[in-house]
Amino acid sequence: MESLRKYMFGLMVKAWRICGKAWTSIWTVGKEDPRRIIHAFKVGLSLTLVSLLYLMEPLFKGIGSNAMWAVMTVVVVLEFTAGATLYKGLNRGLGTLVAGSLAFLMEFIATEYGKIFGAIFISVAVFVIGSAATYMRFLPDIKKNYEYGVVIFLLTFNLITVSSYRVDNVLKIAYDRFYTIAIGCGICLVMSLLLFPNWSGEELHNSSVSKLEGLAMSIEACVSQYFKDHELEPDISKEESEDHDPIYMGYKAVLDSKSYDATLAKHASWEPRHSRHCYRYPWQQYVKLGAVLRRFGYTVVALHGCLETEIQTPRSVRALFRDPCTQLAGEVSKALTELADSIRKRRQCSPDVISDNLHKALNDLNTALKSQPRLFVGSETNQTSNMLALAAVTARQSVDNHLPSANTESSTLHDWKLSKRVSKKTKEARKVLRPTLSKNAITSLEFSEALPFAAFASLLVETVARLDIVIDEVEELGTKANFKEFYADDEIT
Amino acid sequence: MESLRKYMFGLMVKAWRICGKAWTSIWTVGKEDPRRIIHAFKVGLSLTLVSLLYLMEPLFKGIGSNAMWAVMTVVVVLEFTAGATLYKGLNRGLGTLVAGSLAFLMEFIATEYGKIFGAIFISVAVFVIGSAATYMRFLPDIKKNYEYGVVIFLLTFNLITVSSYRVDNVLKIAYDRFYTIAIGCGICLVMSLLLFPNWSGEELHNSSVSKLEGLAMSIEACVSQYFKDHELEPDISKEESEDHDPIYMGYKAVLDSKSYDATLAKHASWEPRHSRHCYRYPWQQYVKLGAVLRRFGYTVVALHGCLETEIQTPRSVRALFRDPCTQLAGEVSKALTELADSIRKRRQCSPDVISDNLHKALNDLNTALKSQPRLFVGSETNQTSNMLALAAVTARQSVDNHLPSANTESSTLHDWKLSKRVSKKTKEARKVLRPTLSKNAITSLEFSEALPFAAFASLLVETVARLDIVIDEVEELGTKANFKEFYADDEIT
Repeated sequence: MESLRKYMFGLMVKAWRICGKAWTSIWTVGKEDPRRIIHAFKVGLSLTLVSLLYLMEPLFKGIGSNAMWAVMTVVVVLEFTAGATLYKGLNRGLGTLVAGSLAFLMEFIATEYGKIFGAIFISVAVFVIGSAATYMRFLPDIKKNYEYGVVIFLLTFNLITVSSYRVDNVLKIAYDRFYTIAIGCGICLVMSLLLFPNWSGEELHNSSVSKLEGLAMSIEACVSQYFKDHELEPDISKEESEDHDPIYMGYKAVLDSKSYDATLAKHASWEPRHSRHCYRYPWQQYVKLGAVLRRFGYTVVALHGCLETEIQTPRSVRALFRDPCTQLAGEVSKALTELADSIRKRRQCSPDVISDNLHKALNDLNTALKSQPRLFVGSETNQTSNMLALAAVTARQSVDNHLPSANTESSTLHDWKLSKRVSKKTKEARKVLRPTLSKNAITSLEFSEALPFAAFASLLVETVARLDIVIDEVEELGTKANFKEFYADDEIT
Repeated sequence: MESLRKYMFGLMVKAWRICGKAWTSIWTVGKEDPRRIIHAFKVGLSLTLVSLLYLMEPLFKGIGSNAMWAVMTVVVVLEFTAGATLYKGLNRGLGTLVAGSLAFLMEFIATEYGKIFGAIFISVAVFVIGSAATYMRFLPDIKKNYEYGVVIFLLTFNLITVSSYRVDNVLKIAYDRFYTIAIGCGICLVMSLLLFPNWSGEELHNSSVSKLEGLAMSIEACVSQYFKDHELEPDISKEESEDHDPIYMGYKAVLDSKSYDATLAKHASWEPRHSRHCYRYPWQQYVKLGAVLRRFGYTVVALHGCLETEIQTPRSVRALFRDPCTQLAGEVSKALTELADSIRKRRQCSPDVISDNLHKALNDLNTALKSQPRLFVGSETNQTSNMLALAAVTARQSVDNHLPSANTESSTLHDWKLSKRVSKKTKEARKVLRPTLSKNAITSLEFSEALPFAAFASLLVETVARLDIVIDEVEELGTKANFKEFYADDEIT
């Protein structure tokens, strides 16, 4: 009895916890994007409206049980953004129309022959058209813009063809059905276009802006962390800290944006031009910009990799180049922010602001590298060797000076690796068999301590080259989308 | 008359060309993946079978016009892979069942009150449940596994609730509908599970293998191209050549695999265990492996970036390190191929093969760098400075020696940039205002000619570190999926 009570109590606590979790989840979803709540209410309202076709006597008399199709249309067509609703609605309308016409033709032929031959003819037609339409769905062009339409075509065609075999006035059925579907589509369109509309195009536009800003943030955070004076606390596990890492947060959205961008652009292309101008808006240019930003993002990931790599240039060496690197990153970041700002305000970007300062920053880095000719005397043209040799020798010196700390570093690495391995106790037996790769990582410390800084600097210069391409794409976007001209007296962030 | 004939002729030629294009497209789709053709036939066959419910007298008598629901189910549920079909079919069944129960409850309450209050009650219920269910679709857990089920729930609930207002024996309707939907689902399941099934799990498994192989190919191609003796032909435009670039082809599939992997894993988790063993197959581990491979891929992209960057280390300098780099890349590539092979054959990987050779390759690179202490005498511990200084000074020398060729290179770059710009004639006026960034790129040649090789070497070492993580994940996959043990006498590719 006592144990049963305990069990029940435990169960209640568990249930309470699950409820709490569910509530948090529900709350978060709404808080993240309040438009979701509005959308939910819109669907509820549309369904209620369409139900009135059934519930109200005079309306029902006109439409009858075909009102079912209106209900179905609302459930299936009404989507979160206006573009998606239009895509589905128009595809549904088109698919139904084509299917209806074709089915009517089939029925006309089938009734020419008798019952038996008619049935055979219909079966063959269903098979052939079913196979052909399904195959069509794989074609890239169809898949991109009309996949849903083909599904609806198949659905409607089969329903009408097959049921026409038992019913006489198939035209009446088709007409009624089309009529109610039109009512359903109409309600959906009103709801999605007129009542708090969410535009896919806006979403795409805003996501481009936030991607540019995220990359700007990432680069700046990356460089500032690289030149930080102290090591990061190692007690946070890597997976956990990744979610709060500003660098990762900045480029995360960029990396996996391909399919999201493509979907938004597809839906946006179905949306009416809701701006003042009536030109064809270049949504595909946003997709192109997204691709260029992804390429830019990969460079940032590699830059981030320089922070996480197991072989590190000592901080004392890095400190020598902190200012020019920080400045260059700052300028790249500023340029990206300016680009983001120009897109947000739908104006063309101010190109001279971008490259004047960037040029200066690159020169500064150059000067900084030139001004360190301590170690061996070379001609003025030999800056490269100066810098790298300096970096290398200083690295060596600092290792000699701070040998204990260097040892600590590498043993920390070793410990971390070890703890990682110990935690996987089941695999330990196999691990002994394999000389661990971490040994390699430590061995490689011997020869490549100055390499990471060189890689870091090189990747930083690489971002400038990539920035050039990003600017080109943003300019092309500005031209194609008829953004307003840039005037020097506009405020510049 | 003549012009009309000409016009008609032109039209016919155009139509012929369009037909040709369409045919090529249709042919390619089938050739790329012949399973598509089989799938199309399967859909046609299923539709024909389900049509027989209507067409054949005895069957029709039993089921009647509800056969419509079976047709609808087949069109909507039968998907390309077995997992997707199961996901949709089971979701549809579940959604219909829950919706039916709830609708029955609603109707029971609604009939308690009169006609008017019943109608109001139904309207309110439709609104509340419509809103709540739509909101639920945004919850991550629901969205991941049950989104389609919620749509079907909403659809069925509304259809039954609303139509029950006009019809008396709603239980009979619900029963008939469920019955026909079950027939439809049954046909779909037979078709997708028994007749030439395409398993999402297989697809995921194979795509992991091909991703590993692609990366292996990319790395090898990357290094061999970096150390090639001659420049690539510049006459192929960049966008065009990208599609045939073996490096790009190798990592392309890896970069944007996130949503595809997630979808396949979702569908695979609905599939029955079709292997001999009945354990829960770790599909999520494939997704994790995919994420690690994407990280690896970003490093390869950065490596590829070293080939494309505007500042290049002269080929004569690169040639000094060709052998060790090629060897290291070869070993990494071999390790990846071995991992791919172990997954393909569902056996655990042989770890000692991987790290022994890798270790050796790293050491060889180390030795190669040590063995070039030509320029200034340093202690044995100063290999880094030796190598980098050597690289830098040799770079300088080769520039001095081959000044014409170096000039050609940079002017080729300039020409390419210029031609790119000239082609955008509309923007020329603005370009004059902006000091082109290519100027920066050329300016930066002054100080960072040796940097790119350092970056290249560093990134190559980085791939080894990343390989470690990939191996960990593949081992975990092997353990979780109960791959067969590795024996030394197994053949090794």
